[in-house]
Amino acid sequence: MSKEVKPESVSLSPLGATAAPEQELLCIFGTGDFGRSLGQRLLQSGYKVVYGSRRPHSCGPLPMGAKVLSHAAAAESSSLVFLCIHRQHYDFLESLAPQLKGKVLVDVSNNLKKNLYPEANAEYLQRLVPGAHVVKAFNTLSAWALQNGPSDANRQVFLCGNRAEAKQAVAETATKLGFSVLDRGSLSAARELEDFPLRLFPEWRLPLLIAIGLSAFFFFYLLIRDVVYTYVVQGKDISFRIMVSLANKVFPIVSLIMLALCYLPGIIAAILQLYRGTKYRRFPDWLDRWMLCRKQLGLLALGFASLHVFYTLVIPIRYYVRFKIGAGIISQIKENRTSEFDNSIAWRGDSYFSMGILGFCLFLLLGITSLPSVSNALSWREFSFIQSKLGYLTVFFCTFHAYLYGWDRFLRPSTYKWFTPPGYMLSLIVPSLVLVFKLLLLLPCVDRTLTRIRQGWERCDPEDDSKKTLLT
Amino acid sequence: MSKEVKPESVSLSPLGATAAPEQELLCIFGTGDFGRSLGQRLLQSGYKVVYGSRRPHSCGPLPMGAKVLSHAAAAESSSLVFLCIHRQHYDFLESLAPQLKGKVLVDVSNNLKKNLYPEANAEYLQRLVPGAHVVKAFNTLSAWALQNGPSDANRQVFLCGNRAEAKQAVAETATKLGFSVLDRGSLSAARELEDFPLRLFPEWRLPLLIAIGLSAFFFFYLLIRDVVYTYVVQGKDISFRIMVSLANKVFPIVSLIMLALCYLPGIIAAILQLYRGTKYRRFPDWLDRWMLCRKQLGLLALGFASLHVFYTLVIPIRYYVRFKIGAGIISQIKENRTSEFDNSIAWRGDSYFSMGILGFCLFLLLGITSLPSVSNALSWREFSFIQSKLGYLTVFFCTFHAYLYGWDRFLRPSTYKWFTPPGYMLSLIVPSLVLVFKLLLLLPCVDRTLTRIRQGWERCDPEDDSKKTLLT
Amino acid sequence: MSKEVKPESVSLSPLGATAAPEQELLCIFGTGDFGRSLGQRLLQSGYKVVYGSRRPHSCGPLPMGAKVLSHAAAAESSSLVFLCIHRQHYDFLESLAPQLKGKVLVDVSNNLKKNLYPEANAEYLQRLVPGAHVVKAFNTLSAWALQNGPSDANRQVFLCGNRAEAKQAVAETATKLGFSVLDRGSLSAARELEDFPLRLFPEWRLPLLIAIGLSAFFFFYLLIRDVVYTYVVQGKDISFRIMVSLANKVFPIVSLIMLALCYLPGIIAAILQLYRGTKYRRFPDWLDRWMLCRKQLGLLALGFASLHVFYTLVIPIRYYVRFKIGAGIISQIKENRTSEFDNSIAWRGDSYFSMGILGFCLFLLLGITSLPSVSNALSWREFSFIQSKLGYLTVFFCTFHAYLYGWDRFLRPSTYKWFTPPGYMLSLIVPSLVLVFKLLLLLPCVDRTLTRIRQGWERCDPEDDSKKTLLT
Repeated sequence: MSKEVKPESVSLSPLGATAAPEQELLCIFGTGDFGRSLGQRLLQSGYKVVYGSRRPHSCGPLPMGAKVLSHAAAAESSSLVFLCIHRQHYDFLESLAPQLKGKVLVDVSNNLKKNLYPEANAEYLQRLVPGAHVVKAFNTLSAWALQNGPSDANRQVFLCGNRAEAKQAVAETATKLGFSVLDRGSLSAARELEDFPLRLFPEWRLPLLIAIGLSAFFFFYLLIRDVVYTYVVQGKDISFRIMVSLANKVFPIVSLIMLALCYLPGIIAAILQLYRGTKYRRFPDWLDRWMLCRKQLGLLALGFASLHVFYTLVIPIRYYVRFKIGAGIISQIKENRTSEFDNSIAWRGDSYFSMGILGFCLFLLLGITSLPSVSNALSWREFSFIQSKLGYLTVFFCTFHAYLYGWDRFLRPSTYKWFTPPGYMLSLIVPSLVLVFKLLLLLPCVDRTLTRIRQGWERCDPEDDSKKTLLT
Repeated sequence: MSKEVKPESVSLSPLGATAAPEQELLCIFGTGDFGRSLGQRLLQSGYKVVYGSRRPHSCGPLPMGAKVLSHAAAAESSSLVFLCIHRQHYDFLESLAPQLKGKVLVDVSNNLKKNLYPEANAEYLQRLVPGAHVVKAFNTLSAWALQNGPSDANRQVFLCGNRAEAKQAVAETATKLGFSVLDRGSLSAARELEDFPLRLFPEWRLPLLIAIGLSAFFFFYLLIRDVVYTYVVQGKDISFRIMVSLANKVFPIVSLIMLALCYLPGIIAAILQLYRGTKYRRFPDWLDRWMLCRKQLGLLALGFASLHVFYTLVIPIRYYVRFKIGAGIISQIKENRTSEFDNSIAWRGDSYFSMGILGFCLFLLLGITSLPSVSNALSWREFSFIQSKLGYLTVFFCTFHAYLYGWDRFLRPSTYKWFTPPGYMLSLIVPSLVLVFKLLLLLPCVDRTLTRIRQGWERCDPEDDSKKTLLT
Repeated sequence: MSKEVKPESVSLSPLGATAAPEQELLCIFGTGDFGRSLGQRLLQSGYKVVYGSRRPHSCGPLPMGAKVLSHAAAAESSSLVFLCIHRQHYDFLESLAPQLKGKVLVDVSNNLKKNLYPEANAEYLQRLVPGAHVVKAFNTLSAWALQNGPSDANRQVFLCGNRAEAKQAVAETATKLGFSVLDRGSLSAARELEDFPLRLFPEWRLPLLIAIGLSAFFFFYLLIRDVVYTYVVQGKDISFRIMVSLANKVFPIVSLIMLALCYLPGIIAAILQLYRGTKYRRFPDWLDRWMLCRKQLGLLALGFASLHVFYTLVIPIRYYVRFKIGAGIISQIKENRTSEFDNSIAWRGDSYFSMGILGFCLFLLLGITSLPSVSNALSWREFSFIQSKLGYLTVFFCTFHAYLYGWDRFLRPSTYKWFTPPGYMLSLIVPSLVLVFKLLLLLPCVDRTLTRIRQGWERCDPEDDSKKTLLT
């Protein structure tokens, strides 16, 4: 193949004549923390490294084996320049435009805050040195990660840039350093990449708010119904129950409601599709947003369920419980009462525990399959089987668990202190609705229509039958 | 082909003249759900997109920025065509043969059922348009995944095709969209890929059957021995015990047997190798199949063990247990009996719990290391250390736990109601066998022979000593 | 760049003339286990395979479809030769130098022990056949993994070599077989790769030693204080308590100390940086090593915490506990004592349990986010938020849990049997120090200085202000 690869296209093809049998030379501007760590790692991976510095002779300790030159000389020597400099010092690069022409310029910078500047650092850089090929990369890594190699939250290098060859050259270097690369498109994605390290669980915000809101509401609701009511009506101080008993009422209630909230949007979507007779109209925004945070809702619900489990299992070790049981036995003896073993209470209690355990174990299974590495190994059908079929089974078990807890107290007037229903009754509303509507949607006639709609069929829209021919 | 592969051209540059400076134009046939989502994603990733449609002027809403042309015109404009059309509408492509000649044709289609057609969709397509390079890809993704980017079960794109360049082109596009690509070979693998989305835990089927079979057997066995026996002999209704007590006998029994079944095939394989004096003869099919589902067997066993743990921890909260303890204390007082604290019972009980907890925690560890992302980070030696050494330790702890449960009841005649042994005795058979045989295999003389065999040595096979020189 | 991208070349080929439309021919030397498995896998992936053998006509069963030739003929036919032979048989390759000239030679060999030979197998090979391009690869895989495709601990192929094209060619083959490739640099890394399969949790060694040391110390300490003391002073044999009660004291103590040991090095580092007034001086070696094993320390601590949880939850089912509670009630009745319900004991006990549960659940969360696949999905800021903020919260909860356990016993002389403090007091030293110092570091004046130092500022080092301009 007569591919005469000219040196100026060096950064290009990984292999052609490029990658000299031995080591490629890369240039780093900036001798700060990040620059040093990067240089060290590059040297370890078999590259030659030259630093560009304002004062090449007094720039502090650098990794062994690296050369230091002036910015201009350093830029000349390599076709790929890493820019480990703060944005506010970029201006001097304008004067280096001739040396940087045609070079790949890797912008690794981050800002301290979002929206500090009108344009992304990398875009600003590209404007300063229009002749260079700017690639945004490595900014999501810490200097620590560079020095010690990929690990934990530091394995992925995101990059973006306008020129494919430039990106490819950077991608190869990153791969050689042991990172995995994800191309995020053109340089216009640079702002997104620069915001990424400042990100703090954006997709968890809404579910967390819901969880906190529900917890707060039910905490005060139960505080009034249990502790305050007892104090007012019976004059007894049972405030110690806040720590475990009350918490162990709030957790399962919030967990059950949030679990049901994972499945409610799916039901609403199905009803909307049935009503509209098509799946080609967009859902309202709130529904889309709701659907996108179902996973987080579910995982939070699982967290609350776990707390409920631990709080429940700790019950028999509690002083209060031991005291009550002891007092019960003693009073029984003193008053010479005999209590009969009640088979139906045993049935009810054991069913209650069984449902709870089965529900929780299924819930754990859902949680485990939502681990990235597990869900990656599943086919789409398997994933949706678990998250949907087993998910509804979980909702059913947990709801049934709560109904068994209520048992015959639903009809007893004494349950409704101060005319308010107990917390668990409130928690049953959403899951019951979800289960009832799911059952309705499973009715053969409804299910058939819905399936057809989801395969692309549309109700009474004759002029648009092309869609039917298309893959769903 | 006269492929004089010169060493220097071997691995050749991905980029050559290919990747245009700016945006590549891709073509999509079909404006359905999948086609739209794909187009939108391609546009977001910086591609230009043109749709091919039967009626370019009335094909419904399309992603902003995409053009719509006739099929022929669209095909002309790009070298890569995504075919987002149902298989039954493929025929019209025959007439486009001239426009599609030399183009890469990406078949994304799936069928609703396995074996609906005699040949894979992609192979049928290749037959229809022999001049095009058909690549099967993207069919394992949902439209939803395409629209929202890779996530969960939707990160991997499998592809296959007969032409390497065509596959490479599709692979690059997929990578740019953020997916990771797995090449599955020639187009003959298309059927496998098309069946993939219809797959539902094939490797779990056998272990699940075993688990269900064992559970059912032991459930009825214990139902008869416990509930029915008590009813017939003592006339007492203890049916409520089904929910927790009985379940909590079935779960650990099944778990222990299945855990042992994970290690039995390894033992059988070792004995076979010792007997045959070589490792170069294939194992019988059933053994191979058994070995391949050990992981699933183990994870199911872990699930049953977890259920056992929860059912056990819930014991002291149960009405039945509280009642029994209370009744015991009351009768003790009334009859003025005094019971002495028995040190050996305390030792036995506490050892029993300790073994159980240690066994379960080790079992959890085995489960965690079988998570794909964890096991990927382990070297082969580390993985086999955990799964084998720690695995046998787990079997030992759990078996010992069960023996301690039995304690002195093995010799008591009253244990054998209706002349049947209790369930836990049956559960001890397989793990005891596994442990005994493992000990035998660890005897120095046996172990040495086995190690030599596994390193390629063969007993009395003098004419074939070449094997000894080869790497194992 | 005048790269006129013609549409028809778009899809094009990374591969130039290389990847022939159909199958590439690869050569394997050695017909042992590994060679056979490799050949079978290559055939399945669409390659043609030829084996090189000393005795081509009597080399045992080979995968269907493979040819067998003499070494020389086989080497001639392909540009890539896999060497599946033990190192001690490499010498004959010297005579094949002419046929191997310019070929890519893949060394897959491992040794049985570390440092068996003065140089790595691959380097030895390169010396033997200097004209060939030696690439070390595939040696971390087992023959089993090759035969059955990537799975679990067998997904990654590490490679190294001096020639980039050669590595690229091998990388492509590995990718086609379904493995993911990690380039580890030049051939000098071969020794590291050859040692890799012999590795057995090197980074876990120190944390494990610490865990075992602490456990042993506290076990004997508590054995003397509890069991021996009781035997000597009261003449009572409570040795049965070793199994659960004693273990359940050792586990939480070790867990708490090790959890605090995860956060101590960070505190020491901060103090060092404050004291030195710069972050540009290296930490002492022991601190670096300590910091690198924090994750392992934490996970071991989590393991001990889990054991503590299970041992605690099992308490109410224990014979000893049931006996004691029963005996307590009986003696209460006989002596006609009445005990009053004590609100403050209830508060204390329930807070104690709450803190423990919350601490453990947070700890579990830390453990889950340290799973590779989870931490990969987090941004750096998110990861450090969890591991640092939530980490300190965990330390706080767990320490508070231990203080509540002590309660008013800190001041009671009877606590100090034989003038020794109980175990939990010893366990509180390190975490208390960590929390106090962390609070001091959070004081606004200290925190501000530290933040500035970490952003690159240096105290009184005027001639070196270039660093301030550099990215941190």
